[in-house]
Amino acid sequence: MSPSSDTDPQKPQTRPYGDRPVVRLRPKGDARAIRHGFPWVYADELVTDRRTQGLEPGALAVLEDGERRPLGLVTVNTKSKIIARMLDRDPLAVIDQAWFATRIAKALALREKLHDTAHYRLVHAEADGLPGIVIDRFGDAVVVQPNAAWAEAHLEPLVAALVQVTGVSTVIKNGSGRSRVLEGLAEEMVVVQGGVSAPVPVPMNGAVYMADLMGGQKTGLFYDQRPNHAFAARMAKGARVLDVFSHVGGFGLAALAGGAVSALAVDASAAALGLAEEGARAAGFSGFSTRQGDAFDVMEMLAAEGAQFDLVICDPPAFAPAKPALEAGLRAYERVARGAAALVAPGGYLGLCSCSHAADLQAFRNASSRGIGRAGRRSQLIHTGFAGPDHPMLPHLAESAYLKALFFRLD
Amino acid sequence: MSPSSDTDPQKPQTRPYGDRPVVRLRPKGDARAIRHGFPWVYADELVTDRRTQGLEPGALAVLEDGERRPLGLVTVNTKSKIIARMLDRDPLAVIDQAWFATRIAKALALREKLHDTAHYRLVHAEADGLPGIVIDRFGDAVVVQPNAAWAEAHLEPLVAALVQVTGVSTVIKNGSGRSRVLEGLAEEMVVVQGGVSAPVPVPMNGAVYMADLMGGQKTGLFYDQRPNHAFAARMAKGARVLDVFSHVGGFGLAALAGGAVSALAVDASAAALGLAEEGARAAGFSGFSTRQGDAFDVMEMLAAEGAQFDLVICDPPAFAPAKPALEAGLRAYERVARGAAALVAPGGYLGLCSCSHAADLQAFRNASSRGIGRAGRRSQLIHTGFAGPDHPMLPHLAESAYLKALFFRLD
Repeated sequence: MSPSSDTDPQKPQTRPYGDRPVVRLRPKGDARAIRHGFPWVYADELVTDRRTQGLEPGALAVLEDGERRPLGLVTVNTKSKIIARMLDRDPLAVIDQAWFATRIAKALALREKLHDTAHYRLVHAEADGLPGIVIDRFGDAVVVQPNAAWAEAHLEPLVAALVQVTGVSTVIKNGSGRSRVLEGLAEEMVVVQGGVSAPVPVPMNGAVYMADLMGGQKTGLFYDQRPNHAFAARMAKGARVLDVFSHVGGFGLAALAGGAVSALAVDASAAALGLAEEGARAAGFSGFSTRQGDAFDVMEMLAAEGAQFDLVICDPPAFAPAKPALEAGLRAYERVARGAAALVAPGGYLGLCSCSHAADLQAFRNASSRGIGRAGRRSQLIHTGFAGPDHPMLPHLAESAYLKALFFRLD
Repeated sequence: MSPSSDTDPQKPQTRPYGDRPVVRLRPKGDARAIRHGFPWVYADELVTDRRTQGLEPGALAVLEDGERRPLGLVTVNTKSKIIARMLDRDPLAVIDQAWFATRIAKALALREKLHDTAHYRLVHAEADGLPGIVIDRFGDAVVVQPNAAWAEAHLEPLVAALVQVTGVSTVIKNGSGRSRVLEGLAEEMVVVQGGVSAPVPVPMNGAVYMADLMGGQKTGLFYDQRPNHAFAARMAKGARVLDVFSHVGGFGLAALAGGAVSALAVDASAAALGLAEEGARAAGFSGFSTRQGDAFDVMEMLAAEGAQFDLVICDPPAFAPAKPALEAGLRAYERVARGAAALVAPGGYLGLCSCSHAADLQAFRNASSRGIGRAGRRSQLIHTGFAGPDHPMLPHLAESAYLKALFFRLD
């Protein structure tokens, strides 16, 4: 035996992972979920000694279990309830352009199987192996949301890999995500490469949507609703359609592509409605109109006017983004359902959406059903939809699927 | 005031509903759910006096609340945990051909909106206002499953209304439903009108399925999987496909229509595989083959042969049809997932289905995810599907949606 303590397998080496700091699960902690693919460590599962507390948000570290066995490479944020997120099962993985390129190429393969044109969510965070990173593709341009500190710190190799794998010429950084504040990141919109001078036309479901990549909500367009737009379009032939909380015309324009005779889009944002009108013109749709204002007010006005529609869809913002807002959020969903149901012609259809993490499918369905009942209507539930397959999930996080769309037929 | 007690509004009339017997909720019973559209009364909610006990299974009766206010017309089965099912909110409704015609016409309107050809589930029991009655349409023929005693007793006006509304020439009664035994009904297959001499070709998702209306499982074909077949077809281009528990080739033939290079169908039934082969010939598909045998055994043999597929789908029979079978059922789903995951090529796709009432979405997803993990694979969940919209649900019963399809991408 060598006299050096470094070769004693019973004694941990002082720097087994080079310069990488080590964080460790509590001694009695259960590492099974993480070994089986769960991507997060909660704050109360980790030994938070002074060294760990001293790590900068977004720092890389090696995660060990309570018995000092390595579990993988994580990014740490001691200010977050999710204190560590798994980046790689290999604790020695190097996070460089090649590493990003491998993950982006894998993500791209799924999207190219799913879609004929290059318009999709390219990277959907954890499920695509890139925690806190969301990337939407609009043909030759991508919009990157680095919503975690580690992503911001590695933006250069990430962008280089993106360009390498996809060949896009424009990369925009959208730093407006809510979670960036928690991560201590600035709110900013930056053209990293190339540029766009006007809204980008996006073909989906036979319609054309105008995406404002620099000024719009989120990344300018909501790709997640694509299959639900398609379902609405299927029910729209010959219908008078009302699209409440329309944003750039998601459901309304898809309905016109599906053969609706008219579609009225309602939104509080005049800019969004302007883009919706531009989309209708680009596709050559007639029968499209808009009404700017508070959705609840407009629905009441329409009811007072005696307006009736064969298909009404409501896709409101998240009323219950997190647990504290759940009760008030469910009441708001019920109010939406009640107001919308009153505008559905006898035998017509009603689509209700929720993008609230905190309101699960059952809670949202109950609130919707209650609202429909309070409008004095009886209903059949004919379809339940989620975000499209370019928004994959880790099975371990599937309970928290945020987007739900319910389609009812009303008596 | 008249001296006759019949005119005293405080005193219940002895025969206020003509010959119709009356059943009543317990005095402190809560009628709110029923008033809001819940279609069932459980045995412990009803006063079960001797008169109620004496009602024949399937008898019609007027349901009153604890304060003797009428709630509607129900069908009663004192031998069932669901002791009464709502037929009509009008306690005096007459259940005749015209009554059936109204409900069937309403059901037909939805299906004609959904489908270009006359191949669909036409009536889906409670949600279409016809408790215990399932009707599938195959163009010019319909297969009726009267799974409740009241339906059997009213078969004549039901069939007359069916022919009147749809114009079909063939009506087959499929009396093989499991619930018929509970209702005290005979197991029988009867050609009520017209007839078919051979399997009927059914076009779906670009494929052709051969439905044996007289001898097949259930009604000869499973329409409920149509949207899930379509999703599989979308992932099938250029793929080698394995369809386990294939029945008449549901997923395999759809995959070939979607551009799969080959599809291998596995089923225990030689008759079902024969129909699948006939379907492949009818559509002119090459690359279709079958393997008869126990699905678990065949999957093991394929693994031993080193076989790999780009898309594997498993659509087993209900392993957990009711609560007592739940644990064993979930173990069986896990075993299916494990065996199937081992046959998926790296980067390939896996579709897992459950038609078990007792296994809810979360339980089934957990079992599937566990099985995939036990096969040493990591996964993304890319799609969750349910039965198609020609299988509507009452929102109050949506928790019990039986069919779930999960699509995973495996590393």
